[in-house]
Amino acid sequence: MNKVRAAITAIGGWVPETVLSNADLEKMVDTNDEWIISRTGIKERRILKGPDRGTSEIGINAVRQILEKRNLSPLDIDLVIVGTVTPDYFFPSTSNLICDQLGLKNAWGYDLAAACSGFLYALSTGAQFIETGRCKKVIVVGSDKMSSIIDYEDRATCVIFGDGGGAVLLEPDDSGVGIIDFVLKADGSGGQHLNMKGGGSRNPSNHETVDKKMHFVHQEGQAVFKHAVTNMADVSAEIMERNNLKSEDIAYLLAHQANKRIIDATASRMGLSSEKVLMNIERYGNTTSGTIPLLMTDYEHLFRKGDNIVFSAFGGGFTWGAIYLKWAYDPK
Amino acid sequence: MNKVRAAITAIGGWVPETVLSNADLEKMVDTNDEWIISRTGIKERRILKGPDRGTSEIGINAVRQILEKRNLSPLDIDLVIVGTVTPDYFFPSTSNLICDQLGLKNAWGYDLAAACSGFLYALSTGAQFIETGRCKKVIVVGSDKMSSIIDYEDRATCVIFGDGGGAVLLEPDDSGVGIIDFVLKADGSGGQHLNMKGGGSRNPSNHETVDKKMHFVHQEGQAVFKHAVTNMADVSAEIMERNNLKSEDIAYLLAHQANKRIIDATASRMGLSSEKVLMNIERYGNTTSGTIPLLMTDYEHLFRKGDNIVFSAFGGGFTWGAIYLKWAYDPK
Repeated sequence: MNKVRAAITAIGGWVPETVLSNADLEKMVDTNDEWIISRTGIKERRILKGPDRGTSEIGINAVRQILEKRNLSPLDIDLVIVGTVTPDYFFPSTSNLICDQLGLKNAWGYDLAAACSGFLYALSTGAQFIETGRCKKVIVVGSDKMSSIIDYEDRATCVIFGDGGGAVLLEPDDSGVGIIDFVLKADGSGGQHLNMKGGGSRNPSNHETVDKKMHFVHQEGQAVFKHAVTNMADVSAEIMERNNLKSEDIAYLLAHQANKRIIDATASRMGLSSEKVLMNIERYGNTTSGTIPLLMTDYEHLFRKGDNIVFSAFGGGFTWGAIYLKWAYDPK
Repeated sequence: MNKVRAAITAIGGWVPETVLSNADLEKMVDTNDEWIISRTGIKERRILKGPDRGTSEIGINAVRQILEKRNLSPLDIDLVIVGTVTPDYFFPSTSNLICDQLGLKNAWGYDLAAACSGFLYALSTGAQFIETGRCKKVIVVGSDKMSSIIDYEDRATCVIFGDGGGAVLLEPDDSGVGIIDFVLKADGSGGQHLNMKGGGSRNPSNHETVDKKMHFVHQEGQAVFKHAVTNMADVSAEIMERNNLKSEDIAYLLAHQANKRIIDATASRMGLSSEKVLMNIERYGNTTSGTIPLLMTDYEHLFRKGDNIVFSAFGGGFTWGAIYLKWAYDPK
């Protein structure tokens, strides 16, 4: 018998209906389609438009897909961890809202804030509860409504981010598949380059913080790009080395979709040919905690049981990391 | 050899210097010392006063105590989980800020949002990383600057909350002490009674949310009190039953310090005499994620190796739960 590992046994993903294209952005800020595509690879992104809609809506739709696909009772779920930097509220948590809306009455859970690495951090955390045997069915959500914290007058950020996300079901497995290893890192000195200054305990919301646009993402693109390229490539190489993985052993890289050029640099460092590097940034932009679950949803049909898959991310904090897993099921 | 468990092997706690007494509050809102004491048990609370001070400052002071007490290198720490509903920022995380300030360069970490149950949820989570062997030294912080989200014109809430918190070091132990069991629960339908409506993705900060006071704690005291009394008592009884603990087996109850009457009801249900029920609500009020670490700090001198201790909490979400642990060290 192998060690008990946390296997991803079902997934769901969801994006809102409203499309914000590069052409739309051309009308809002001084930018153009060609520039956006060449610098970021993004053609359009989705926006959760309308009043009283929060990140929980994305999670609810994704988790509902999992319950339906697997014909699970809502009462079967033990724990729901939500990676997000755009929770509906500070409290109740987005986890509480998702559980309440879907009737997951036996589940406890919480929101986990780690910016663009939120899903990897949450997935690693959820896996611990499976490995110790404390939980049998854990749902990990990565979901963000980035449009709620984007300044649509700032062309440096508004072209990059979009809304969306997804969820995975983790269950124990002793057949050798599941989450094998993770390498997660952080460096708070990077906070100066990528942050949102208002709305927390340091700068509580008031008229001045609103006037000063402190409730929007502030990103120094070049500094973040430089750190992201190096760190995402390094950590991805490190997880390969630790697990004696050669390029040819890896079926797919699912990298955080922040910028096509960062992903290309990571893939190159890992020695991966382009067909192994999954991308959907052109359609969704950077959905923060949502990117990797959305990639899984879009490419689930490719994954075969036993495939070696690497997840890799870099983002605000700075936070970054990589996860190595063996996929647990064949396509239907 | 026993199972490897996560043992609390060092603790730290910190409150800011500024005292806000009931007499001070009498000058600010229509209330009085006698009413506050009879309804809540609170005489004074601490406030983190001054510009540019956030929840991380509380955590930094508490974690520094742990490093000093144990003469640890900052590089020894693997993971820092911060339970808080008042992070300095949405990103970088309060965990990132603490690690950066103290030079914990090998640690990753994140903020975990679960309101007044934040510390119990974070402690249970940190324990998983120890039990699986993924981490050797985990720091769990419970810390809140509640004054950043309190309306000091609302007498229903401003008398209750204060600022402060603490931290614990978790290390593996196979001698039988450490965290034995936990029962954690949530019910998002309680969100209507205790919440903060503004500042998240549902109601992003703007002039209207500020004018409508949506960035302050909203609490319907009676409804929360009713649920708290029942649920905190039930979950504390449940963890005793699950672990065959009789009243006389329990050395101390450390309950979330929200209201003396809720704690008394829980103690009564557990059959505990008053000397086993630790309290400091009179000095600090409700510091949300901070209460249980602050209790540990104040009463550490009482705890003997092998003491059966129960932590219990109830709060926003609703979230609630109990943890049963055997204390790991004798007083110096």
